[in-house]
Amino acid sequence: MFEALAPEITVYEVGPRDGLQNEPVPIPTADKIAMIDALGRTGLRQIEVTSFVHPKWIPQLADAVEVASGVARVSGVTHAALVPNQHGLDRAQAAKMEEIAVFLSASEAHSRKNINKTIAEALLTFDEVIPAALEAGMRVRAYVSTVFGCPYEGAVDPVVPARLAADLVAKGCYQVSLGDTIGVANPRQVRDVLAQVLREVPLDRLAVHFHDTRGTALANVTAALDAGIRTVDSALGGLGGCPYAPGASGNLATEDLVYMLDGMGVRTGIDLDALCEVSQQAAALVHHELPSRYLKAWAGEKVRRARKPPVSSA
Amino acid sequence: MFEALAPEITVYEVGPRDGLQNEPVPIPTADKIAMIDALGRTGLRQIEVTSFVHPKWIPQLADAVEVASGVARVSGVTHAALVPNQHGLDRAQAAKMEEIAVFLSASEAHSRKNINKTIAEALLTFDEVIPAALEAGMRVRAYVSTVFGCPYEGAVDPVVPARLAADLVAKGCYQVSLGDTIGVANPRQVRDVLAQVLREVPLDRLAVHFHDTRGTALANVTAALDAGIRTVDSALGGLGGCPYAPGASGNLATEDLVYMLDGMGVRTGIDLDALCEVSQQAAALVHHELPSRYLKAWAGEKVRRARKPPVSSA
Repeated sequence: MFEALAPEITVYEVGPRDGLQNEPVPIPTADKIAMIDALGRTGLRQIEVTSFVHPKWIPQLADAVEVASGVARVSGVTHAALVPNQHGLDRAQAAKMEEIAVFLSASEAHSRKNINKTIAEALLTFDEVIPAALEAGMRVRAYVSTVFGCPYEGAVDPVVPARLAADLVAKGCYQVSLGDTIGVANPRQVRDVLAQVLREVPLDRLAVHFHDTRGTALANVTAALDAGIRTVDSALGGLGGCPYAPGASGNLATEDLVYMLDGMGVRTGIDLDALCEVSQQAAALVHHELPSRYLKAWAGEKVRRARKPPVSSA
Repeated sequence: MFEALAPEITVYEVGPRDGLQNEPVPIPTADKIAMIDALGRTGLRQIEVTSFVHPKWIPQLADAVEVASGVARVSGVTHAALVPNQHGLDRAQAAKMEEIAVFLSASEAHSRKNINKTIAEALLTFDEVIPAALEAGMRVRAYVSTVFGCPYEGAVDPVVPARLAADLVAKGCYQVSLGDTIGVANPRQVRDVLAQVLREVPLDRLAVHFHDTRGTALANVTAALDAGIRTVDSALGGLGGCPYAPGASGNLATEDLVYMLDGMGVRTGIDLDALCEVSQQAAALVHHELPSRYLKAWAGEKVRRARKPPVSSA
């Protein structure tokens, strides 16, 4: 096991987008910007800051242009945003994004429900958006969602995401992130799906994106690391739970991921204490506890340390 | 990966002991018995029901004899209890236990703090207790704690738990459970520690016992499964969090474990829905939410289903 383990992993922080888009309470734009800027000071090098989808669909991110324009550009930190179509790309350009992400589903039923398009129709949109983004000097990332299961269709044949990933790379995406949108994957499946996708796409073009809905996210990362994966998506504090199930887990928590990688001797460049401080502030912004296990342990430890009587200097 | 994956895993349920011993609110004996009996109807075959330590140390389990005597003996379900010494063994015999568990630490500092004995002194006690238990027809299990890290000493040399495990098997223990007592392990370490222990002890004599304090428990199980481990300890709902940190994670949650194993095609014989029902009742008993991710997702799904308008029969 871990013969192919990478010595260094890129943690792709998606909390400001994939996390906050699920929060029912509106968060002031200035607080979002402050949060993203603080994340950039923790050592994270990739931060997805917002989504240029229509505010009708995700009102939480209606301030996308303000957020994307407002974050401080820092050397070594790339900011990205989701872009569904040409109009979204225009907004991303207006906000001077360095990177965009396109997205589509590996299941027809989810594609229709989520974006009201077939998979083929989504790919046609990309034929317009991706070249235009590349032409404008942006990097393009892609998400394939429901790779490990669909809420409507159930099982998904790994041949489909493998083919889609190859197609997206051919269209110019520098990386394809394979998403377990509803958090149903298990490590054996991750091994098998990655083996299938790796027949079509080289390792350094792939990322994994797990949700911790049923507690398996970090176990799935373990299988992905074993396969040699070098980019893992996560969200500060594990933001991104379903808004209808308070306390339910959302994205894999960045803290839990970084703690594990640190312990395994895999470099991330991220300061875990600094990250926990940002997540504690984020918890205050969203008005609820965040699901990250490490964050809870860290906060408990902080309280215990604070309670200890000061050592007498006498 | 998973070349050595076992087709069937024994889930060793420790919630009634390792979970409830950390709960500050007293739980009525009859409720404990009802919970254990309900667990026995979920397909679990190994349940640790209590601990015969002195009530001065763990007042939560002062009703150990009543609980152990009160649970219904069911064919196919083995009940076990922790036993620290000869007096504990006498109580276990009075309660007609089929199996006992002895415990010791892989770190001297933890051993002294936890049981006020050196490791060598703990082993001397076992020279009395284990033969007596075997003589009385009981099976004897052993826990080695702080295998992956000690709260006082930090790192633990894997040679120590390897030697202890071999010694415990030589003394007559049918199984040794390697414990990550403070929840600091990572999957790479699990691979390495198991490799070390497996030099001294055969695979079918080993179990793993992970705490989810920092979110890594199921990732650690993944590494243990890869090594061929066939028995995994867990607690219903993830009971066992630190009483001083409400909401903090405790033992690996049995639900999360069984969900993952089911998905991997590994048989456990456990009915996950039935288990979740028991855990929901346990949450009511301890007066707080349980940390299991799967349980939260399951409970949310149950609420959603209940809210759906009934389909008209017209």
